[in-house]
Amino acid sequence: MKLLRVGTAGAETPALLDGEGVLRDLSGVVPDLDGALLADADALGRIRAAAEAGTLPALDPTGLRIGPPLARIGKIVCIGLNYHDHARETGAQPPAEPVIFFKAADTVVGPNDTVLVPRGSVQTDWEVELAVVIGRTARYVESAEAALGHVAGYAVAHDVSEREFQLERGGTWDKGKNCETFNPLGPWLVTADEVPDPQNLSLKLWVNGELKQDGTTAEQIFPVAEVVRYVSQFMTLYPGDVINTGTPAGVALGAADPKPFLRAGDVVELEIEGLGRQRQELKDA
Amino acid sequence: MKLLRVGTAGAETPALLDGEGVLRDLSGVVPDLDGALLADADALGRIRAAAEAGTLPALDPTGLRIGPPLARIGKIVCIGLNYHDHARETGAQPPAEPVIFFKAADTVVGPNDTVLVPRGSVQTDWEVELAVVIGRTARYVESAEAALGHVAGYAVAHDVSEREFQLERGGTWDKGKNCETFNPLGPWLVTADEVPDPQNLSLKLWVNGELKQDGTTAEQIFPVAEVVRYVSQFMTLYPGDVINTGTPAGVALGAADPKPFLRAGDVVELEIEGLGRQRQELKDA
Repeated sequence: MKLLRVGTAGAETPALLDGEGVLRDLSGVVPDLDGALLADADALGRIRAAAEAGTLPALDPTGLRIGPPLARIGKIVCIGLNYHDHARETGAQPPAEPVIFFKAADTVVGPNDTVLVPRGSVQTDWEVELAVVIGRTARYVESAEAALGHVAGYAVAHDVSEREFQLERGGTWDKGKNCETFNPLGPWLVTADEVPDPQNLSLKLWVNGELKQDGTTAEQIFPVAEVVRYVSQFMTLYPGDVINTGTPAGVALGAADPKPFLRAGDVVELEIEGLGRQRQELKDA
Repeated sequence: MKLLRVGTAGAETPALLDGEGVLRDLSGVVPDLDGALLADADALGRIRAAAEAGTLPALDPTGLRIGPPLARIGKIVCIGLNYHDHARETGAQPPAEPVIFFKAADTVVGPNDTVLVPRGSVQTDWEVELAVVIGRTARYVESAEAALGHVAGYAVAHDVSEREFQLERGGTWDKGKNCETFNPLGPWLVTADEVPDPQNLSLKLWVNGELKQDGTTAEQIFPVAEVVRYVSQFMTLYPGDVINTGTPAGVALGAADPKPFLRAGDVVELEIEGLGRQRQELKDA
């Protein structure tokens, strides 16, 4: 299923995009899409039954904002340098084990919302990423095979990054990853049953119409299942947590000088195969 | 005011410790203590009026668990190496600007709850810290003078840390800071009006009765007001966010070999002047 949330920021209602591409209202079936819902097999079953019964009211998508597909996100665990090609372009060695950093849930906006260039920023960069949404608590998961059973679904994430804040201002990467609006998410949360192989998805990102990233999750150094297993050894993952699993090559940081960092007026578009497309205009904070 | 939350984990009710040390039930006045409440001057006024009127029912503290004093915490921003004496003991240069890392809100437990030594851990360490609770949105705050106006209050935080995960497993410090139960908070949220000088508080921590940390916030490299101003340049702070402002000297990492890292059965006690005292027993995860 393709689950989403539509409406004004902070007042979104749950919806479903059906097999014919028709937007359907879920607000009569579930109150919202969040971790509690994803952990509730009955509620997911109700959505599925209503979708199959064809009884859900259609929604007119005209002018309707799409919000992030998940409310009340817990934590966002991010995996750094997780693509062979991206590690090469940044001059980093491929890590021996996954690199973890964090984004705060309050950085999440809808897939087509404005992204703000922070005040004082001169190195705002893009990163298309496969986001993994946790549906079942993952704590010391014993094997990669078992790990995918904790995944509720997948979404497109834009891991917007300020490289000077991240790399040149002391401390951890978190300083350049948590500016407001820095995590567009969506349009959809695609349930895991519709993503049979998360290691075979193409990811693309354009800036002002020019293709900048053109990768595949087959290039991931640590695949999704191993990432979930690994992270669960260091922290407990709860329903409604998100893992941003890293970005392929093609970011501004990896380009020749002068690096084409983002500025107000730029337009970024990104998509992952089967998971939908985002479009953001940049503005100054 | 000393605000707290008492009861079973996940089902705490709001309470107040009055000037005579009597625990008072706030559940008839406010539904819970969270960021929304801290941002609501009317609700805080109702608490204050009820406290002054002496009409709040007394609670019997016998056998009553104390939870964290804040529900629905947004993000926890942590400041690393923020005490001159702690930077020295870890062999680090004092940072030129604040070092930022993150703890997830799901690491928060009550001040006397069990702390779990993670599986595979051999370097679980303690850190007593002054936690700052945000009450008013802080975004590009212009001066340290203005910054304290965004602070709702203060609390004791235990920034439990796994040093091998933090420093020897690749990536950022976050890997060793986010194990479950790694952020005991409380017992109280002491409103800012009762902490006239956050830069003159003594902090102490004992392990199995032996004093290990004996510091003062006067040793902070970046004082609270500057920390709030600085962080707000990189991310927006919202009501219900918490900043752990760093730890003074005396952690296991800074001790002579063999370093006395924590093990199951150890008991850690910590207190900050005017903000109360915590006591945790360590168990294996």
